[in-house]
Amino acid sequence: MKDKLYIIKIGGNLIDDEQLLDGFLEQFSEINEKKILVHGGGKLATTLADKLGVEQKMINGRRITNKDTLDIVAMVYAGSINKNIVAKLQQKKCRAIGFSGADANLIKARKREHAEIDFGFVGDIEKKSVNRKLISKLIKLKLVPVFSAITHDKKGNLFNTNADTIASVIAQALSAKYDVELLYCFDKKGVLEDVGNPESVIKNISEEKFSTLKNEGKLHKGILPKLENALGAIKNNVNKVFLIKETELKNHIENHHAGTEICL
Amino acid sequence: MKDKLYIIKIGGNLIDDEQLLDGFLEQFSEINEKKILVHGGGKLATTLADKLGVEQKMINGRRITNKDTLDIVAMVYAGSINKNIVAKLQQKKCRAIGFSGADANLIKARKREHAEIDFGFVGDIEKKSVNRKLISKLIKLKLVPVFSAITHDKKGNLFNTNADTIASVIAQALSAKYDVELLYCFDKKGVLEDVGNPESVIKNISEEKFSTLKNEGKLHKGILPKLENALGAIKNNVNKVFLIKETELKNHIENHHAGTEICL
Repeated sequence: MKDKLYIIKIGGNLIDDEQLLDGFLEQFSEINEKKILVHGGGKLATTLADKLGVEQKMINGRRITNKDTLDIVAMVYAGSINKNIVAKLQQKKCRAIGFSGADANLIKARKREHAEIDFGFVGDIEKKSVNRKLISKLIKLKLVPVFSAITHDKKGNLFNTNADTIASVIAQALSAKYDVELLYCFDKKGVLEDVGNPESVIKNISEEKFSTLKNEGKLHKGILPKLENALGAIKNNVNKVFLIKETELKNHIENHHAGTEICL
Repeated sequence: MKDKLYIIKIGGNLIDDEQLLDGFLEQFSEINEKKILVHGGGKLATTLADKLGVEQKMINGRRITNKDTLDIVAMVYAGSINKNIVAKLQQKKCRAIGFSGADANLIKARKREHAEIDFGFVGDIEKKSVNRKLISKLIKLKLVPVFSAITHDKKGNLFNTNADTIASVIAQALSAKYDVELLYCFDKKGVLEDVGNPESVIKNISEEKFSTLKNEGKLHKGILPKLENALGAIKNNVNKVFLIKETELKNHIENHHAGTEICL
């Protein structure tokens, strides 16, 4: 039987709220099974870019990462946020070790190619991008990897990569060795049938259900890529995938079901 | 017989010069023995602080690290500089893995205590601060640790710590297991007898010679703490300690002597 491994993704709203983050990290540190944390960015990068007068260009809701923006996200994600999370987890006796994808070539990306748009320093990744052997060895040393959403191309360039995608792809790569449960933590109790009703959690979403909800226009654009990454994971041998509220982590792990489960 | 381990410290002038840094990293990546890189900060942190209007306070040449300054150095050192160096080393087929002292509790510091001055988020460290068992395990995995000058206190706080001290203390801690050679790389050919003459390299400096040079006022204040850290290493069982020119790394390793050797 494979060992259980939790891969848990947290996002901006949690990172921007010190108290909420601390409560989450407390719950995370209490998980007894093997675990990996993946974190997104939060408002800090945008705030810093504003202060430095670096203009943020977005196309279709995607950040265009020019060199100045890359410098900022590398500093903020891999420096400030990652090291602060690691220090806080260490305080809670969790053996956290922080990484970008460049470290030990853990996640090798290629520059996003697009017919019309140059996204700049944005890296795309897939299952084989992940150095799963080394991650497994680090886990074996009882370490808890904490990934920021920075990757590299092994040609000396750092890249900005979507944190939801990083979590999904790491989960896929490690499913050969572990019984992986991937948890996307966010500020809702799950995917909502009715955005206006926080209790209208959809219990299960399959690929078919996803298509229906999408065609009915029931999924707001923030949740779409998250669900695509979640479905990508479940289709690639990740054992379980859930979207849960960030304050419900402990409850989910103890009671085996909170939020929305993604299924085949 | 113990395995050879090089611990190599580089500083600001190298980090601020892309071409010089690239040449150094090329030489570093070609070292066949086990190795660790420790890097300082450069001007980037000061430039960023200026842009953000964060005033830099210095007392006796030491930076006072308030919370805003800590946020900046954590971003710049552990994010920008560390990850860029790691990405460049990976390009050169060196299995670099970047760290702050918070990661895996590799270097645990305590807040600097001083009767009159509050240095803020400045961490002091000693030999026992270093998690030498885990560093050894990482080296055994054929990884090349790259340390930024950020530590933590295991109470959730990050600290700014002198990079020369980090190199010295890691060298001391790992000397129980390895035959350690500690190399301080800087922009001179060694410690100079006459600051105006770049060729006037002092071949050997013992503790006695250091006292004499210091009393004669021949050591400028930039070199003093570096020499104190170098002497601290040689007195604590580090096998060899040199101060060399950063462009002379390969030459030093192949020819076994360039620069100033620190001896007992």
